[in-house]
Amino acid sequence: MRGSSRVIRSGRDGWESVDRRPYKEDGQHFRSVTRQMLLGEDPGQTTLGFVVRYFEIGAGGYSSLERHGHAHAVLVLRGRGRVILGRDVFEVHPFDCVYVAPDATHQFQAADDESLGILCIVNRERDRPHVIPPRESGNSAARG
Amino acid sequence: MRGSSRVIRSGRDGWESVDRRPYKEDGQHFRSVTRQMLLGEDPGQTTLGFVVRYFEIGAGGYSSLERHGHAHAVLVLRGRGRVILGRDVFEVHPFDCVYVAPDATHQFQAADDESLGILCIVNRERDRPHVIPPRESGNSAARG
Repeated sequence: MRGSSRVIRSGRDGWESVDRRPYKEDGQHFRSVTRQMLLGEDPGQTTLGFVVRYFEIGAGGYSSLERHGHAHAVLVLRGRGRVILGRDVFEVHPFDCVYVAPDATHQFQAADDESLGILCIVNRERDRPHVIPPRESGNSAARG
Repeated sequence: MRGSSRVIRSGRDGWESVDRRPYKEDGQHFRSVTRQMLLGEDPGQTTLGFVVRYFEIGAGGYSSLERHGHAHAVLVLRGRGRVILGRDVFEVHPFDCVYVAPDATHQFQAADDESLGILCIVNRERDRPHVIPPRESGNSAARG
């Protein structure tokens, strides 16, 4: 199936005709995260071998502490926060890029007083994540 | 080969340790375009089935008017300009997304007084573009 070229406009409340969804349907290991599928999920866009998602993490929130066999390509779009990569922690700002290697334990955290918006691109075909209990991560900055 | 997780910091003059290169090595069918390979090109990042590039088009500049069998996923990061998609023309602003369908003739143009910076994600394996003479495009806004 093959879709048409199109522009998806960005507005104050997100992208037009793009739903803001829960980050995940279940679990207590994340906080204040929404997800918007920007490109590649539409049935007309499957010649793209990847999907482009936008995640917004509210102030004080965080994504799952997890690992998986696929890599992440991330570009920070808005706000301020930090990323856990294995035993390291890095502050991140708009337009910083993050490469999350296969099997690296990782977590994105918004600042306490500011949300964090990230673009995250992944292969269309990929394995499911494993959630890691923070105490098993060896990283005292991990939350969950 | 398998690289390590890393953060690539964005600064005033682009991303650290990312070269700013010519857009293409040859041709007269584009103007004032530079290219930076952000993620996926590094030999340690080939488990990503895609590459993430950043193109900056100077004020009054434009990319090649071209088409190819692979699709483009584009997110505007900076500036102002427009995109030609077949016979249509759309103004674009930061965070607008553009899906360029397979075989669609397309061109990104910066505004006359402002540059345009776009993130463009493509499959790692893809065909080569064909440059289209503007007069054959059926779009009076096409340049080249």
